[in-house]
Amino acid sequence: MSGPVLALVGATGAVGTVMIDIMDGRASVPWSEIRLIASARSAGKKLTVRGEELTVVALSPEAFDGVDIAMFDVPDEVSAEWAPIAASRGAVAVDNSGAFRMDPEVPLVVPEVNADQISNRPKGIIANPNCTTLSMMAALGALHREFELKELVVSSYQAASGGGQAAIDRLYAELEALAGKEVGVRVGDVREVLDAAGLPVSDSPFPAPLVQNVIPWAGSLKDDGWTSEELKVRNESRKILGIPDLKVSATCVRVPVVTTHSLAVHAVFAREVTVEAAHKILAAQPTIVLVDDPAELKFPTPVDTVGEDPTFVGRVRQALDFPNTLDFFVCGDNLRKGAALNTYEIAEGLAERL
Amino acid sequence: MSGPVLALVGATGAVGTVMIDIMDGRASVPWSEIRLIASARSAGKKLTVRGEELTVVALSPEAFDGVDIAMFDVPDEVSAEWAPIAASRGAVAVDNSGAFRMDPEVPLVVPEVNADQISNRPKGIIANPNCTTLSMMAALGALHREFELKELVVSSYQAASGGGQAAIDRLYAELEALAGKEVGVRVGDVREVLDAAGLPVSDSPFPAPLVQNVIPWAGSLKDDGWTSEELKVRNESRKILGIPDLKVSATCVRVPVVTTHSLAVHAVFAREVTVEAAHKILAAQPTIVLVDDPAELKFPTPVDTVGEDPTFVGRVRQALDFPNTLDFFVCGDNLRKGAALNTYEIAEGLAERL
Repeated sequence: MSGPVLALVGATGAVGTVMIDIMDGRASVPWSEIRLIASARSAGKKLTVRGEELTVVALSPEAFDGVDIAMFDVPDEVSAEWAPIAASRGAVAVDNSGAFRMDPEVPLVVPEVNADQISNRPKGIIANPNCTTLSMMAALGALHREFELKELVVSSYQAASGGGQAAIDRLYAELEALAGKEVGVRVGDVREVLDAAGLPVSDSPFPAPLVQNVIPWAGSLKDDGWTSEELKVRNESRKILGIPDLKVSATCVRVPVVTTHSLAVHAVFAREVTVEAAHKILAAQPTIVLVDDPAELKFPTPVDTVGEDPTFVGRVRQALDFPNTLDFFVCGDNLRKGAALNTYEIAEGLAERL
Repeated sequence: MSGPVLALVGATGAVGTVMIDIMDGRASVPWSEIRLIASARSAGKKLTVRGEELTVVALSPEAFDGVDIAMFDVPDEVSAEWAPIAASRGAVAVDNSGAFRMDPEVPLVVPEVNADQISNRPKGIIANPNCTTLSMMAALGALHREFELKELVVSSYQAASGGGQAAIDRLYAELEALAGKEVGVRVGDVREVLDAAGLPVSDSPFPAPLVQNVIPWAGSLKDDGWTSEELKVRNESRKILGIPDLKVSATCVRVPVVTTHSLAVHAVFAREVTVEAAHKILAAQPTIVLVDDPAELKFPTPVDTVGEDPTFVGRVRQALDFPNTLDFFVCGDNLRKGAALNTYEIAEGLAERL
């Protein structure tokens, strides 16, 4: 066969598993070979991709020989070391970590918004955005093309799975510990039940109980009280949309949902907006599903989004007191479009251009 | 005894029960009599208030004879009918429903913000604000006095108990049905489990599953896609703060928490703000607890707020791109300060002025 060779680094992780599911469902590129790469510990493991049993190989410089495109779903420090090695061996690295996103020589790509940037890769590396930013990019990109975005105030309702498998396991364990107990009615009762179940918060990947709770914290502390996650939403939105002076305030909050990030978005534009015009624009996007019929109580929610590829947009309202402003709500599966799917879409775009 | 006579209408409801707990804990007013009033169905029931067993009497015009202050924790339509009757019998009605909040002849009072309005009651009625608005009023009132508030963008994380006992029961039932099931990973799995447990969403007070979910909907549909809850946040904030042209956009979202509303607030002021100055102002308020030490992962969350009287404020940040702007997060028990406590504080203020 004459198709390009694709490698998946981190094939056995949470996002890697979703990536294999996505590759099974999309036949657009006739890859001549798919190579699964993981840590030495996972090497030799067998996984089925597109009906074919493949053996995972250990990460090494030689593992990239002959590879055209290498997708990385690994921690920041692994990407920082290995994406340049893949590039030096002739592959284009598509990296889903935070290691290269703000590097001026690395494009940060959401295909619906800035697919043209795929060709502009002096380091042989293309970055995939943070999942929270990604959830709103298809909608904001489409609205920006028409109305010119100026300001963004965003509050997130982020799923546990953004923190990986340990975070998912923790939420399930907390849910099980609290079942049948009428707690959440006085200070300390949730923590007492978790302690009694052998689940003290000190053992959790989260800084507070996640059941019966929302936690206004995601990522790590940066300057002046902002979190890394909130700064990613600001800085990555500016880079992807190509608006270096976009004004952004984000508050990132974890909620007791396994998968699907939601965002309440307040977006100020340079030109006049109407709900009707916004609906028309959003409904025309192939990767957006508009769910906005409040009279029938239809709006996007995580349980109706999880496992789906599109982002779901609803509750579109014209701000009553702010000119040229729309308020809306968006839900996106943070493991699919928020991670694996967008990475794979970049790889598809690269394959077309090879 | 020579103290005033206090009546509690709706003594057997969810908020009424919290009200009795609050009266037990606050001895500031030596009421000469506390009269418990409820529907005819609950009349004759015995409840203990401040160590004394009281018999609930049925709602009737005569029930208000001799009453100085009548607190109403009943549905809108009951208040609309009965608060004027109480007033006509000589009582001041302090009403926690939505019936009179926007009436220009009825003051809408948060004692920390506009206690002076207590004396201005041409109809003999004083209204208590909506619980979502109330959760942020102590903080915004204090910051407004110093910096002059101009604009507000708010996203809520609202507890189930805002919908009453049926809503609380529903959340507990959903939590129990999902325990031990690894759901929330594909579309429909949460709804399937609820259906199998005999808990179809069609029987729920909520328009979608609340477990494993967030629901961008609270209240009823008003003009142009806005909900009644979102408009209350806007209109009541303007009235309480005395800023008729305050610009407000609110998105109200229900989360799987039994009690305590949280809000992510983006507040724009006329004058220069700093986190240091805001901290000083907030820490000086007797009804606010400042929990804002991100380096130690200290910030307010619902499980550490529920059952407490103060509102908890944290994550105070100076906006990076908006002048004179603070972003912060606030948690308040929606049944206490959000409802019963504020109503009782108004009654205390009235008792001082009788």
